[in-house]
This record gives sequence, structure tokens and C-alpha cells, in this order.
Amino acid sequence: MYSFTNDYSEGAHENILKALLESNLIQSAGYGLDEHSEKAKVILKNVLKNEEIDIHFIPGGTQVNLICISSFLRQHEAAIAANTGHIAVNETGSIEACGHKVITANSNDGKLNKEMIEKILKTHSVEHMVKPKLVYISNSTEIGTIYKKQELVDLYECCKLNNLILFIDGARMGSAITSKENDLKLSDLVNLCDAFYIGGTKNGALFGEALVICNDKLKEDFRYNMKQKGALLAKGRLLGIQFEQLFKDNLFFDLATHANEMADMIQDELVNLGYKLLIKSPTNQLFPILPNESITKLREKYAFGTWEEYDENNTAIRLVTSWATDKEKVMELIEDLRSL
Amino acid sequence: MYSFTNDYSEGAHENILKALLESNLIQSAGYGLDEHSEKAKVILKNVLKNEEIDIHFIPGGTQVNLICISSFLRQHEAAIAANTGHIAVNETGSIEACGHKVITANSNDGKLNKEMIEKILKTHSVEHMVKPKLVYISNSTEIGTIYKKQELVDLYECCKLNNLILFIDGARMGSAITSKENDLKLSDLVNLCDAFYIGGTKNGALFGEALVICNDKLKEDFRYNMKQKGALLAKGRLLGIQFEQLFKDNLFFDLATHANEMADMIQDELVNLGYKLLIKSPTNQLFPILPNESITKLREKYAFGTWEEYDENNTAIRLVTSWATDKEKVMELIEDLRSL
Amino acid sequence: MYSFTNDYSEGAHENILKALLESNLIQSAGYGLDEHSEKAKVILKNVLKNEEIDIHFIPGGTQVNLICISSFLRQHEAAIAANTGHIAVNETGSIEACGHKVITANSNDGKLNKEMIEKILKTHSVEHMVKPKLVYISNSTEIGTIYKKQELVDLYECCKLNNLILFIDGARMGSAITSKENDLKLSDLVNLCDAFYIGGTKNGALFGEALVICNDKLKEDFRYNMKQKGALLAKGRLLGIQFEQLFKDNLFFDLATHANEMADMIQDELVNLGYKLLIKSPTNQLFPILPNESITKLREKYAFGTWEEYDENNTAIRLVTSWATDKEKVMELIEDLRSL
Amino acid sequence: MYSFTNDYSEGAHENILKALLESNLIQSAGYGLDEHSEKAKVILKNVLKNEEIDIHFIPGGTQVNLICISSFLRQHEAAIAANTGHIAVNETGSIEACGHKVITANSNDGKLNKEMIEKILKTHSVEHMVKPKLVYISNSTEIGTIYKKQELVDLYECCKLNNLILFIDGARMGSAITSKENDLKLSDLVNLCDAFYIGGTKNGALFGEALVICNDKLKEDFRYNMKQKGALLAKGRLLGIQFEQLFKDNLFFDLATHANEMADMIQDELVNLGYKLLIKSPTNQLFPILPNESITKLREKYAFGTWEEYDENNTAIRLVTSWATDKEKVMELIEDLRSL
Repeated sequence: MYSFTNDYSEGAHENILKALLESNLIQSAGYGLDEHSEKAKVILKNVLKNEEIDIHFIPGGTQVNLICISSFLRQHEAAIAANTGHIAVNETGSIEACGHKVITANSNDGKLNKEMIEKILKTHSVEHMVKPKLVYISNSTEIGTIYKKQELVDLYECCKLNNLILFIDGARMGSAITSKENDLKLSDLVNLCDAFYIGGTKNGALFGEALVICNDKLKEDFRYNMKQKGALLAKGRLLGIQFEQLFKDNLFFDLATHANEMADMIQDELVNLGYKLLIKSPTNQLFPILPNESITKLREKYAFGTWEEYDENNTAIRLVTSWATDKEKVMELIEDLRSL
Repeated sequence: MYSFTNDYSEGAHENILKALLESNLIQSAGYGLDEHSEKAKVILKNVLKNEEIDIHFIPGGTQVNLICISSFLRQHEAAIAANTGHIAVNETGSIEACGHKVITANSNDGKLNKEMIEKILKTHSVEHMVKPKLVYISNSTEIGTIYKKQELVDLYECCKLNNLILFIDGARMGSAITSKENDLKLSDLVNLCDAFYIGGTKNGALFGEALVICNDKLKEDFRYNMKQKGALLAKGRLLGIQFEQLFKDNLFFDLATHANEMADMIQDELVNLGYKLLIKSPTNQLFPILPNESITKLREKYAFGTWEEYDENNTAIRLVTSWATDKEKVMELIEDLRSL
Repeated sequence: MYSFTNDYSEGAHENILKALLESNLIQSAGYGLDEHSEKAKVILKNVLKNEEIDIHFIPGGTQVNLICISSFLRQHEAAIAANTGHIAVNETGSIEACGHKVITANSNDGKLNKEMIEKILKTHSVEHMVKPKLVYISNSTEIGTIYKKQELVDLYECCKLNNLILFIDGARMGSAITSKENDLKLSDLVNLCDAFYIGGTKNGALFGEALVICNDKLKEDFRYNMKQKGALLAKGRLLGIQFEQLFKDNLFFDLATHANEMADMIQDELVNLGYKLLIKSPTNQLFPILPNESITKLREKYAFGTWEEYDENNTAIRLVTSWATDKEKVMELIEDLRSL
Repeated sequence: MYSFTNDYSEGAHENILKALLESNLIQSAGYGLDEHSEKAKVILKNVLKNEEIDIHFIPGGTQVNLICISSFLRQHEAAIAANTGHIAVNETGSIEACGHKVITANSNDGKLNKEMIEKILKTHSVEHMVKPKLVYISNSTEIGTIYKKQELVDLYECCKLNNLILFIDGARMGSAITSKENDLKLSDLVNLCDAFYIGGTKNGALFGEALVICNDKLKEDFRYNMKQKGALLAKGRLLGIQFEQLFKDNLFFDLATHANEMADMIQDELVNLGYKLLIKSPTNQLFPILPNESITKLREKYAFGTWEEYDENNTAIRLVTSWATDKEKVMELIEDLRSL
């Protein structure tokens, strides 16, 4: 049984494990104040071509989202997200548990745009309603799509005009930024939002996300909020070591590129074979629509998720590739798709 | 420079790293539903001689504390802790951020007893005050002391009588349970409290704590609360693998025993040399009182924390040993203490 | 200028003011433990034909909603409401500020039904999402509609079957229960939900809502939660005195009947004159659609709210009558509508 | 039975009731945007000799405290209070329910001073602990004492120096400001803190407190937070009307002066008779120490609270006078004290 269920089925890239082993018994300071974390920040600032940003390494994505929103907003302020947004659906009310409403905009492609934001602002103008203050987007989105540079430029302009914070969930930033359709550089993001994060968990790390705070006003006392939410890892070095490796020698980008290539191969074949796609994905999450019998047959050899019922006889499934996806298994899947 | 600053300065025991390496590319289910996590639970249930308990692996101690209290209590209910309790002092208001007050009792030895609980109950009897509902203790405590079996028996009886939940923070449970003065078995805890956890971070793991919920009433929907607080690790296998190793072949106990032995050697020598102790510690945290000049001298070769000013010329410092503390370095420290 | 903007433009019924005056200097116990509050509870239990219910008097409706949800739910549990529900839209995120998500169902008539609930339950089945636990409905709803008895019977059956709490916001319960289309008795509610409240603010009181908790499991420690949220009024007698008056001699029902009659007169005339209604209302809130010019003309003499743009030339407005609405002013409005 | 239990046993001053009656059927805008609220603000700004302050009328004191702290602080920030402070003891964890820790300083006289603040700041210097950000004091305090002008000057200077907000709970501000020992003018407060409130509930109103925000930085969006916590009264006029009356023709000060005079008479007599006082009170709350038998005897005719056991045979009781306390009853009590 081979799994295309998600991009966190395997451990970490061997460079990371090697670095963990080599540094294992060297004593270091706790809570992210160690030399590896410092070095990883220097490397990342170099990649992002900016010295002024604040970088924090945080164990998981839900943590980053909730800490940022809790730290950035006042009690009556709310976040805006797409109806598919991870914070709106899949984090068990973590944002609400921090006291903040998530206002959703219905979106067909998992993305937000200026018009959606403005419509929400128009209907939230009095003190009897929450005050929208932060726009949460994901890149790549929860359904595999990505933001083009101009889309981000427009969105951020709208945010600045309306005194809104733009925050980008980058749990799958690697896949977004190495997509064939992408026209953004990672370093562009520093100027196109107030804060974003770069996901390690889903791109070669054991765990860990690198949060980048670009807006000076959001930097103060951030570590207090990390600690309060239980995200200041005692052995913070673990995070530093991993990001040091990921951003040395292009590893992060190479791993994401591999995941995308594996996905492209599968999606191209699905299109060749005449299958419909729920959405055409330029990244590592695919949403093809297959006959129910074919799905049953595929499940004999492969694990993957069901996304939604398409019609009586067909269902959209979700196939996810990762930095560790075996090319031979992908070839095998393609063969199996052909012979369905 | 050798550090006695804390017990999380090093990485993990080699068995753990080896197991991580060996399983690295084997695909497994996410969020703690993998085979390693399942196997680790079986092993732990065996060690704890109980099949009915619920076990959850959680990345860090602050997370365990806040998730438990948030999951176990209603909004108007409060936790009771010693004034030195970690949740009362060193978690940046994490419990309050979940909406609950921490009522503190002044304690000389970091421990709570029946009298302290009853006194608090007596002064919290009306709806104008919070309702005490959970008693939080640490074993070993934040100042190195441990609970004897009878103390826990008495405390739990008091709790049950007063409809209070007894929760034990076991970030340093290894050190407590392997202390020369200890008369508790780890498996005793299942019958002496409602929930407790066994710390991995400070005893040989990269990170991770094993929460044990003994009281059936506290089990329902616990994973919802883990997810909400960002503690449901995508690659949950990391936690399973580590606890599998720690509780195979007695490793957990061996590591803690080493830490205690190293501490005992240092403390014995300090006493021999006539130094006073802020508190006599049976575990891996020591609090000797040294002349300020001696401290300055020691800092040339060793890193350690300052605890509190004792008088004009003397200061209590904090020395911590770990599973990884090098015996040669301990011998060297002893030599240096002798020649002060 | 006469206002049809809302049903809280005036003070209180004269009986209430008289009772406040008469009892003014008689000393009484604080925090709702006074004789008037006790007496009002006895009267209400009599009206509701049930001795087992718990009754609490609370200054305002937003307070009732947030205290109930905060007291009834665990941290990971959520409320379900119609998209028009007051807690979903018009309480500045008060429920989220208590830590709970409000899941909304799109509803054309402001009401929830079994199908909507079941659909939400179906999509909220795992710990990565909040757990729906409470169904919030309003009667009358925010757009003037009411629940028929069978609708409540069905809804409550669905709730009990799915372990959900049914809570009814009765800010305008008077108007609902005295509507010509209503087939519910106030006392029926005790058996058709877990908790509900009877609004005084919008039906003749200066302020105050009477919360009725029917489900025994929700009664414990409720006053702690009232106090915590600042709703335990020092001079609780103010609330007791008002509800004593409202439920003596049928006053509550008479006042609401008047409001409904005034609304019926207006709505009937609007229909006669051929105006469309956004929704046909059996209660004291009307939503007629008028030409923009007519609206401008009416605003010269009357104050009222705009509800939503209907098309380029027409707008839905909101007219609200109250226990204090002057019949002569209603006749005048009708004349003015005729001569538009 | 005559009650000296508290200062909210009676209703409201007749001027207030009269004003409520006279304006009862005049329609007015909701949520505090009515003409009475506007007029009351003008009058108060005049009394406080400042046009720049923001004034908000809020139904109760616990609400003011929790809304201010929730609105003023970020999530990791904490309030400092005396161990006797109302928010620390008697509000059922309302501040913690908003997510904030209350750090307490032990105080003998219910007051905070510079040294206490600085000591707390010194021990709260890292991100593992909450960040103290607001100093909460009460005037008069919960044990009847008051702040002299110089004490406030010193405290506020300390606050400004350390970037702390100074907030004054004025539930009994009337009694403080009209105390014989007081040297503050109400208008001084505008320059001696960041926000304070003037209690109506305990000084002649049915209910209601007037919050004054002096610091511009704390003004933004305050009404959002009022609404979120359920404190934006639909018939906000009720609060406006009451404060209009209280601050017309010196009524507020006259009422408080009466309460103080009644208390002075009793306290003077107690001292004459040789009774000890737990604390000498210059305001309307008294804490005399009486033999237990005398207390039993007094309880035959008077209601009052027990404060704390003093020794085996004596107990400190709490006697409270109010704007409505009957002088004849005070004379009677004095007689009864004499004949004990």
C-alpha cells in the first residue's frame, strides 16, 4: 500500500537527520536562543534579502496561525478568510478559542480578492459587529491553487488602504513558490504582506514552520505570545537545525520542486486519460474526479483521501505528493490509471 | 564552558535518534494515529499496569498543562497551585489565557498539602469568587522536591472528598521516580490522581510528554482540545517513536537515574564542603548557596542559573544535571568546588 | 418625527415605574436574592406551569446569550445559528470572545430546521473541526418570523437525538407568542428546549430578560457564570420588580399583543396598497419594499431603518412597533402611505 | 431589622426616579446615543474641567473592569492589583476569563504604592512570565481607605515611567472624594491616571457607572468592546438620565457626603466606646472589632456582614452606610452600641 494521502507521511530529509545526529550532544541554549536558530535566521534573512524582518521558528502551523492572530489583534477584531481557509475549517476553532471571529468569504478557487474584502468591510461598519482587521490567505491554498504576484500586490494594497493586516499561511509555501505557474520569489513576500510563514513540516522537516514578521508594528513581545501558547520549544535548537539545513544549498526549493513534479506527472496523465479535475492544480495537491469503481480499484494499492461526492457515480479524490514521494510509485500509479 | 543550566541542553538519547532514522521513510498515518504511537501506548499501559487509561503524546509541557486545564474545567472553575508552580509563574499566563484563574498557596517546599487546599476551599465558597476545581502539583517540584506516596494518598483523598481534580505535572517525573528518597512506583500514579504526565523532553527525548488520563470523566473529546491548541502534531509518529524507545528496556528510568546520581555527587560534595543548601534536593535540580566570589569564579568554566539572592555576600544558584551530563565534567566540577 | 426604528425607544410600562417608586427605599438583599426576585420567580413558574425550572434575571440579551453559551459548552464545542442569528451577526463576536465558534446555516426565513442541523453535523465529524453542541434559535427571529409548535417539536427531537442543546433567544418572545399565527403557549417551551429566555427590554421593561433553564444538567453553578460576565446586578431587585409586574395580570401578553396589532395594521395596509414584502411578518418587525422616493418622503415625518437594497429603485425598510407605539401615529402613517 | 450590609440596599434618589418618569414615553435613540447620555457627558466634562476625555456609561462595575482590561491590554499582558482588589477576589475570575492574569501585591491598607509595583516589575522581566501592563487600584479601596493626592501623583509617575496604564475603580469614588481626609478633586483624576470610573450604583443611582478615559491611546473602538461584553444597554438613556441628575446641582457629592457622615458618627462612637478598628476608615465602610456576644446581640436588630475572625472572642464586622441611610437608625444604632 502506497500513500498519497498527505505530505507528512514520511520523516525528514536525510541532511536534517544527519545534522541532528552530529549536533546531538553539543550543549546549547534553550527556547530558540541557541546558535543554530541564530544561524538559520541569518541564512533566511539572506534568502529573503532583508535584515529588518523578525523570524520565529514554531513547531506547527495551527500554532503559528493562532499565535499570530492572538498577538496581532485586539479583542473585538476579526480575521477574514476564504470559506476553505484552514483556520475557518480545520483547526477546531483555535482562533475563536483565542477570542476572535473568523469571517468567511465564499471562494471558488480557495483565494481571496479585493472585492471579497471590500464587501465584508461594507457590511461590518458598526460596533454591533466585529471589526475586520486581518486578512488570512494560504499559498498554496487548501485546494492547491496559488497566488500570482499581481494578485498579492492588489490584495496587499487593498489591505493597507483599509488598515488591514495581511497574513499568509505558508504551510505549503514551498510547493507554491516552485510551481511552474508561479511568478513570485520567496523574497517578494517580505514586501507583499505583514507576516507570512514558510512551512517545514510539509516540505522535508520533521516539524517546524518559520514565521517572518515584516511589519514592525507586529514585532513587539511576540515571544511572550509564543510562550503563552506553548510554542516556545525547550530544545528550540531542533527547529534551528532543520531550517539551517533546509535553506542551505537550495534544499527547500529542490524538495518542493520534486513534490510538484510528481504531482504534475500524475495530473497530466489524468488529463490525458480524459478525467475531469475539480480544480486544475499547479502544486502538490490534486483533486481529480474518478468513477467510484475506479476509486475502489485504486484503493487496493494506494491510500488517498476522498474530497467530495461529485455525482452519483463519480467522486473527487485528493492525491498529495511530497518531497519524499517515490518516482517509481508515481510511474506505477500512472500505469494503474491507464489500465483502469 | 560546560552547562549545568538545565536538563534540556542536549538532544536525545541515541536509541531515539536511531529509531527515527530507521523509520524515517516508512509512510505512516498523521496526527498520532500511526503504529508507533499505538505501540508506545501499549508499552506504557503495560508499564503502568492498566488498560483503561487514555494516553496522549503532546509536544511540550506548557501545552499539556493548558490543554488539560482548558479541557477539564468549566469557565468559572479555577486551578490551585503552589506559589512556585510552573503554571503560576513560568508559563506567561497560559492558563489565564484559556480563561482560568490560578489560585496559589504559599509553600516552602514547592508542594501542596491537604491543609492548604482546605484553607483555599474555605475562602472560596460563594459565586462572587472562582470555584476551585483542579489541584495542580509537580513531581518533582520546581525546586527539586518530591512527593512521598503517603502524601499523594492524602492529597488525592482530600481532592476526591472535595470534588477536585488532581493533576500532576511530570515534566521531571523521571527524576522524581528514580530518586533515592522516592517510594512511589510509576504505576501507583494511575490510582493516585486523575491525570498526570511523564516528561520526555527533560529525560532523553528530543521533545514530547506522555499524558495519562486516569479518570474516565476527563477522557471525552480530549483530542479536540489538543487540536484546538495546536498540539496535534502532523507527524505524530515522532512522539510515538520516542516513547516507544524510552519505555523499552527501562531506558527512561536508567536515564533519570543517571541524572540523579550526577546531582547527588555534586550535592554530597557541597554539603561535605560545608555549603548551605536552599533546599535539600533528592532530584536533579540543586540549589546551593555560595559566596558571590566563588560563583564568579565558577562561571569561568561553567554555565548555570542564579536562583535568588541569599544575603549580601551569598547567592543561591541552580545546578541542573541531565540524562546526558558527563560524569567527567561532574568530577571536574567537584574538584573545582574543593579548590575554591 | 415619530420613530418606528425599534422596540426599545421608550422607557417602561407605568406599572413598572410605579412599583419601582413604591419599593424604592425598602432595603433588600443584593444580587437577585431579594424578595421581589423570589416572588417574580414564583409567578413565572406558575405561568410556565413548572416548579423544577431555574430562573435567572439578567440585564440584557447579549449577556444572556454569551453567559449561557459560555456556561453550557466545553471549550471545543460550538453553537449552530442561522446566518441571520443575532449571535452570528450583531453581538460583536461576543460568543467567539468566550472561545466558541458560531457555525451558521443559510436560512431564507431566519429559522433553523432539522435538515440544516444534520447537514452541519455530517460535515463536523472529526477532531480537526469544532464539535457542534448547541443550537441557537430566536423566536421571533431577527426577521420577524416565528416557529410553529410542530417545528419546535421536530427541532428539539433532532437535538436530543444528536446530543445537542436547544437554546431559544426570546428577546422578542412576547411578540412571537402573541402573534395571530402562533400556536405555542409560553409554558410549552419548558418541554421544547433546554433553555430559553423571555425578553423584557423589548416588551415594556426598562431592561431585563428572564432566563429559564429547563435541563437539569445545565443548572449547576450558573450564577458563577453570571457574576463572571458582570451580569449579577447589585440591585437585582430592579429585575425582580419588573418581571413581577410584567407577569401579574397578563401585562406581558397585553403589551406584546398591542405591538403586534400595530404592526398588523401597517402591514395589512402595505399589502393593500400593493407593496411587496421582503418577508411576510406575523410579529412586530416589518420589512416592506418601497420605492426610494417614497422612502425619502416618509423620512420627513418618520424614523426607521434601512434593511437592504432591493433593486435600483426600491429598498427594503424595517418598521418596528412596540408596546408603546401610539395608535394615532400608526393611523397617521397609514394615511401617509396611502397618499404617497 | 435595619441593614448596614452594603450601599446598594435601596433604590435610587428621588430626582432620578422623577427624571425617569418624566422622560418615560419620549422616544430616544438606543445604545447610549440618546440626548440624555449626550447631555450627561457634557455636564460631566464640565465637572471634570476637560473636553478631551471620553465618557462611557456602563451598567455595572465588574463590567467596567473587565471591558477596560480586555480592551486596553494585549493577550500576554497582565494587571497588577492589591490582594484585596475587587478584580483579584470578588469578580469570579472575570479578568482571567478575558485571558489576563491578575498579579497581586500584599497590602495592609488596600492600597498599592510605587515600591510594590517596582518589585513586581523586577520579577517579571522575561517572556516566560506575563508582562505587567496595567495597575488597578480602587478609591476608596475595598477596605475603606483612600488615596491622598500625593500618593496618586507618585503612583502615576511610576506608571508612566514604566509604561504602565493606571486604572482606578471608582465604584465608591463618591465616598472617597467627599471624605474628610480627602485632598483630591474629582477633576484632578483626569491628570492622575489613564482611566477611572465614577460609581453610580453605590451612590444614588439604580445602577450605572461613568467611565472616563483620559489617555487618548485607550479610546479607540471602546464601544466595540462594550458591545462584545454585553454592556451596551439597548435603552442607554437610562444611564444618561441618571448621571444627568447625579451631576446636576451637586447631588452626587451631597449623597456621598451623607453616607460618609453617617459612617463617621458610628465610627467615632465606636472609638469613644473603646472598640478597636481593623482599619480606621475615612469613608462609608467600617471594620470595627466587637466581642462575639455583642455581635449576636446587634444582629437582633441590624443586618451587617462579618469580615474576619479577629481572635477567639472577637470578630471584625463590616458596617456600610449609604446615601439613603436613615440618620435616626444611625442614632438608634449608636444608642444600642452604648448599651451593649
